[in-house]
Amino acid sequence: MTDATLYMHDNTPLEFKRGGRLDEFTIAYETWGTLNQDKSNAALILTGLSPSAHAASSPEDPSPGWWEPMVGPGLPIDTDRFFVISLNSLGSCKGSTGPASICPATGQPWRLDFPDLSVEDIAAASSRVVTHLGITQLCLLVGPSMGGMSTLAYLQQNPQGARHYLNISGAHKAEPFSIAIRSLQRELIVSDPQWRDGQYDDRDWPEKGMRMARKLGMLSYRSAEEWRGRFGRREQNYFPTETFGMNYEVESYLEAAARRFVGSFDPCSYLYLSRSMDWFDATENHPNLTSALKGIELQSSYVLGAKTDILFPPYQQEAIANALSENGIKTACSILPSIMGHDAFLVDHDHFGPNIAAYLQRVLHEDGLDHQGDA
Amino acid sequence: MTDATLYMHDNTPLEFKRGGRLDEFTIAYETWGTLNQDKSNAALILTGLSPSAHAASSPEDPSPGWWEPMVGPGLPIDTDRFFVISLNSLGSCKGSTGPASICPATGQPWRLDFPDLSVEDIAAASSRVVTHLGITQLCLLVGPSMGGMSTLAYLQQNPQGARHYLNISGAHKAEPFSIAIRSLQRELIVSDPQWRDGQYDDRDWPEKGMRMARKLGMLSYRSAEEWRGRFGRREQNYFPTETFGMNYEVESYLEAAARRFVGSFDPCSYLYLSRSMDWFDATENHPNLTSALKGIELQSSYVLGAKTDILFPPYQQEAIANALSENGIKTACSILPSIMGHDAFLVDHDHFGPNIAAYLQRVLHEDGLDHQGDA
Repeated sequence: MTDATLYMHDNTPLEFKRGGRLDEFTIAYETWGTLNQDKSNAALILTGLSPSAHAASSPEDPSPGWWEPMVGPGLPIDTDRFFVISLNSLGSCKGSTGPASICPATGQPWRLDFPDLSVEDIAAASSRVVTHLGITQLCLLVGPSMGGMSTLAYLQQNPQGARHYLNISGAHKAEPFSIAIRSLQRELIVSDPQWRDGQYDDRDWPEKGMRMARKLGMLSYRSAEEWRGRFGRREQNYFPTETFGMNYEVESYLEAAARRFVGSFDPCSYLYLSRSMDWFDATENHPNLTSALKGIELQSSYVLGAKTDILFPPYQQEAIANALSENGIKTACSILPSIMGHDAFLVDHDHFGPNIAAYLQRVLHEDGLDHQGDA
Repeated sequence: MTDATLYMHDNTPLEFKRGGRLDEFTIAYETWGTLNQDKSNAALILTGLSPSAHAASSPEDPSPGWWEPMVGPGLPIDTDRFFVISLNSLGSCKGSTGPASICPATGQPWRLDFPDLSVEDIAAASSRVVTHLGITQLCLLVGPSMGGMSTLAYLQQNPQGARHYLNISGAHKAEPFSIAIRSLQRELIVSDPQWRDGQYDDRDWPEKGMRMARKLGMLSYRSAEEWRGRFGRREQNYFPTETFGMNYEVESYLEAAARRFVGSFDPCSYLYLSRSMDWFDATENHPNLTSALKGIELQSSYVLGAKTDILFPPYQQEAIANALSENGIKTACSILPSIMGHDAFLVDHDHFGPNIAAYLQRVLHEDGLDHQGDA
């Protein structure tokens, strides 16, 4: 990882929801801004499936982060006010313990011997980082995409864990259409002959399967409307055209994007994280979501989504907002008219930036943090 | 094929739009009803990608057809009034000449030596069947899905070819999102080691690639809304659960459906037909669709779609209706509130049946065919 990455090594065992445990584990994280004296200005970001902890650049690591226009001094998640923590999910491969890590007992990568990972385990490991930093209660919890799931699990596990909550393009349970997409992505990977039942060579990953899975992912992350305007029927001349190969620019765009992704993400980590989302259902053991979120003591929450999101469709954000509201939490919900689909929160800052900034200004004001640190 | 299948063998060469030609070819078709004396009651159906000519059962072949509730005596496409012709597309593998047919010059299957197939070639071959039957002008031309493309090409090639036109869940050109889906489907097939660059063994097809391509197809044919109601998060116990395998009912549903499809459709035919759709653009060489459809002498047209169709989205049906209308053709357009996505025309007869029936009643009345044949 980079110079900005910090590591929490935890020797207290982590019991997994579905059985199995880690006797010790590591979570990679980064922070921005300064934790104030009473430790009341912490904001924790739990990420989507693939990001590292590097949400934004910093003097220690000037490379752009995955949420660069959202996190920084004067930006919507204002690092002049918030002490921002972003971490790499348990199970991922960007510095945190996951199937690609070395299993201490064998000296070999965990791979398929890694315990069955749930979103709830990601939340539990994340909570350890907050404790590790001496923070009792977050000012703000932020979760986009898969983070919209893991932050819900976080709040279920820690009902007093945060005062304010920002859920972006999230869902409280996996629905069959999204399950079908992710299931097919996993099938593409394990059908690649290089997969070798998880014993793939570290220099010979199931790259073709990963590339096709990433393309399918991108089909679910964006929208027909965006691509219509962006690519139309323009032909491609970037890649050689093979039999039944690429003819149009949209195809070469997907190929290039998939190639960038592949090789940077461990296949086994991808499979574990992907499956954890299918398994997630915050209403498990509850008659409904309102009951499932009962007891959570937030002061406010804001739930956002994009109207063109087909992977985490808007009715899922509305369901979360309704349930929070029915629990007496001051909640706002915005389904933004973005054409950028599920990825809108990453790329459509014109729609997401101002809405998030306005909410967080109110949060800071409410908590008396809006001038703290000013000279 | 079955007892009801008829064959047109044509020895007049067919020049393909993109080069190459067939010196001779066969089109498999079926008919229902009786052609009247002045041959004015013919209705031609051009199909979607995968159907055979067997649209409906008949005394000669009582097995259910792919459009059983739509075509028959007293049904919306009423075979008591219309002489209905349904054919298997050129390039397909259900009796018509395609890549799976034997190339006369070599005695071997055409496979990749088959000329590059365009939607326009499908239309041209279909037109030969109409001529073969001695029909100068169709009363009705019907095209769902890919048939919505090939019927447009048919009318461009035969501006006086039909008096009435029913375009269902069609498009006048392939858009990037649909291209991306089909392109990935093709990549799944040619990435299967059994594909063997098109020289696959006839007893050892690239079935895994075909199965995954079919699943991806089904993701684009249905809707999240339908599956939410139909499957929810019910778990599956139909297939054994393997590592990263199927957990939920939606997954076993897709697997079972994909297995039914695979083995019944030649991979090479699939690839040729799929690519032909990407290539289709009725506005090629025209400033816009209104100009592209100029000169078509229809008396009426009806364009339908489903609001949840993500493969051929509603704005594409609206564009066709607008262009027909701007050419002075009496045109109606309905975007039906079906949750069944692109496949709605095949499965949601409550929405499609009555609308199509009402239009065709008007067509029959207008053409003085509504009582013809009555005792």
